[in-house]
Amino acid sequence: MQNFVFHNPTKILFGKNTIPAIGAETAAFGEKVLLVYGAGSIKKSGLYERVTESLEKAGMEITEHSGVQSNPLLSHVRSGIALAKKNGCQVICAVGGGSVIDEAKAICAGSTVEHDVWKFFTGKKSIKAPLPLTTVLTLAAAGSEMNSGMVITNDETSQKFGFGNKQLFPKTSILDPSITCSVPPDYTAYGAVDAINHILEFYFTTEDPSTAVQDRIMEGLIINAMESCNKCLANPDDYAARADLMWTSTLALNGLTAAGLGKVGFPMHMMGHTLSAFYNIPHGASLSAIAPGWMRFHAPSQPARFAQFAERVFEIREGNEQEKADRGISKLTAWFTSIHAPVTLSELEIPEKDIVRIAENAVALAKVWRLKDYDTKKIEAILRVCL
Amino acid sequence: MQNFVFHNPTKILFGKNTIPAIGAETAAFGEKVLLVYGAGSIKKSGLYERVTESLEKAGMEITEHSGVQSNPLLSHVRSGIALAKKNGCQVICAVGGGSVIDEAKAICAGSTVEHDVWKFFTGKKSIKAPLPLTTVLTLAAAGSEMNSGMVITNDETSQKFGFGNKQLFPKTSILDPSITCSVPPDYTAYGAVDAINHILEFYFTTEDPSTAVQDRIMEGLIINAMESCNKCLANPDDYAARADLMWTSTLALNGLTAAGLGKVGFPMHMMGHTLSAFYNIPHGASLSAIAPGWMRFHAPSQPARFAQFAERVFEIREGNEQEKADRGISKLTAWFTSIHAPVTLSELEIPEKDIVRIAENAVALAKVWRLKDYDTKKIEAILRVCL
Repeated sequence: MQNFVFHNPTKILFGKNTIPAIGAETAAFGEKVLLVYGAGSIKKSGLYERVTESLEKAGMEITEHSGVQSNPLLSHVRSGIALAKKNGCQVICAVGGGSVIDEAKAICAGSTVEHDVWKFFTGKKSIKAPLPLTTVLTLAAAGSEMNSGMVITNDETSQKFGFGNKQLFPKTSILDPSITCSVPPDYTAYGAVDAINHILEFYFTTEDPSTAVQDRIMEGLIINAMESCNKCLANPDDYAARADLMWTSTLALNGLTAAGLGKVGFPMHMMGHTLSAFYNIPHGASLSAIAPGWMRFHAPSQPARFAQFAERVFEIREGNEQEKADRGISKLTAWFTSIHAPVTLSELEIPEKDIVRIAENAVALAKVWRLKDYDTKKIEAILRVCL
Repeated sequence: MQNFVFHNPTKILFGKNTIPAIGAETAAFGEKVLLVYGAGSIKKSGLYERVTESLEKAGMEITEHSGVQSNPLLSHVRSGIALAKKNGCQVICAVGGGSVIDEAKAICAGSTVEHDVWKFFTGKKSIKAPLPLTTVLTLAAAGSEMNSGMVITNDETSQKFGFGNKQLFPKTSILDPSITCSVPPDYTAYGAVDAINHILEFYFTTEDPSTAVQDRIMEGLIINAMESCNKCLANPDDYAARADLMWTSTLALNGLTAAGLGKVGFPMHMMGHTLSAFYNIPHGASLSAIAPGWMRFHAPSQPARFAQFAERVFEIREGNEQEKADRGISKLTAWFTSIHAPVTLSELEIPEKDIVRIAENAVALAKVWRLKDYDTKKIEAILRVCL
């Protein structure tokens, strides 16, 4: 096990009827709140009313910043910061999925400084006393509700950059699984894929094979993500399954799985981001299309690790290490297919001739994320396996 | 899954060469520190010098409170509080295992109030702004380094009471597994038993069977506790195994396993505490002597749960639920025996005639801990299975 610091101060309020707590949790940090949300689905579902009612009951003055897109844009972050400054907001409350929470974190960071917020993303400035953040989660997927990271797309330069800072953990996140019963099947599935991919990235990029505790936790979370996703798709109103999937996706990226693994990377996300940017593919779908090929490419160089994955997650007991590895990858691929997540580039109608330009775009992110062993050639080679 | 609040703000610094950070971590809370430790084994190992050097380098003025016993005593807590008050200590630093950290928590709580500290344990007073606590852990077992609970024995009334409060999470805990390489085999084994028992208590007393995420995490932690303990006993200097056992035992009681289970109890600890009190049996040994009998007593009423335990922890696939349950319990019992932990009362030379008085003592704790379905008769019946 590698040395690590684990410090996750986010308070989680999990369960039924927890939404009414958002007012008191948010009012603890000030009277003036910037309420951040997306395209308005929270208005249709009635969540908007429940949240604003609670905030108002707690005596809060609400400024609204809506219209956050999936793959949130820097320009929209900037307008949120201007609004927060203009209205003297003391705290931000994000109601939504990973994109909304990510954008809210960037607004928290940018609202207490004079310089442009993008300087945090390019490493030119360090975080200083950001505004506090509370969240109400509406989608089991990204894990942003219990971590300190975010990804924002600069719509001027087409750069999709991310960073994290310990001052940006949400203070309180409210996770009411019943809210997610209305999430449609495709986004339920993509959310599970996202959570699973967060674990796979760490599981297969760890520099340390002696992470027995973390391995068991990661394997258990993957099994749970699959099992609970299946139940949610079979019966969207299955509260227990929604709860299981929600807590699993939160634990998948809250620092617990990575603690002790040493340096880990997000190579599949790195390639998936380009697919999303070029072809407007949902995040989860981009990951399911990349993962099988990425795994097949890497299995021969770490057969024992891939065999352990196959044995413990899919109970594959026959064959040598490479055979087990292959069967494990096939099983995962088949599961992706069963939930109607794409597993190849061809399925997404991405032609082989595009591979060069995808790789050229992706390699820029590989540099930003310091994925040192990913050059254009390697990315191209992996993408060919993904075809 | 039941509703829950999860909020664990303790910062963990884990790994080699982390001890020198204790000075800065502690000095963040004030200049005057009460250093709490046990019988002096930390002096023999050189740890005392490393800690005090770091504290002094950080400019701290140290007051020492040593001599903490396993099963820490209220009288000693009181003298620690008096010392902290007299010297105006602003922060407490605990160097030791669960007993030392537990006592330090009680001193933190008692040092900022005028009334006697025991009133917190009897529920007559509520915690108010306790002193902050930092810890250096020397034994993988209790989990006190990352939770907010403690158990103290009132040496006037022979009551062994415990409570927890969210203000009593350590601010920072330093976990250097290499320190534990010198822990002798019996205490290494008892520590693993303690960690496993913390998980078993929750696993089998949960009111909610729909805790799929938590189940996988608990099962994985039990497997890891056994595997890493075996490696530590075979080679005490196996750093990876010591690290694995240390992080496993911390995660076993940091709130993660219990979150979502609803009301859980510590019935095996309840009975074990009486064994320790009457016969001076190490905490872990009292638990290994109780657990097999307690499990055999309960398996018939929840065979599916016990069968799942057997299947997932010991890979038992043959037989019906009750048969699997039996085999799982036998496997765990055999493992306890393999690490030289006692598995019956007879092994501890506790005669059958003592059962009545053990039950009479234990039932008092059952009342304090609100284990409503444990009366004297039931405890006696379980103890007979433990014979």
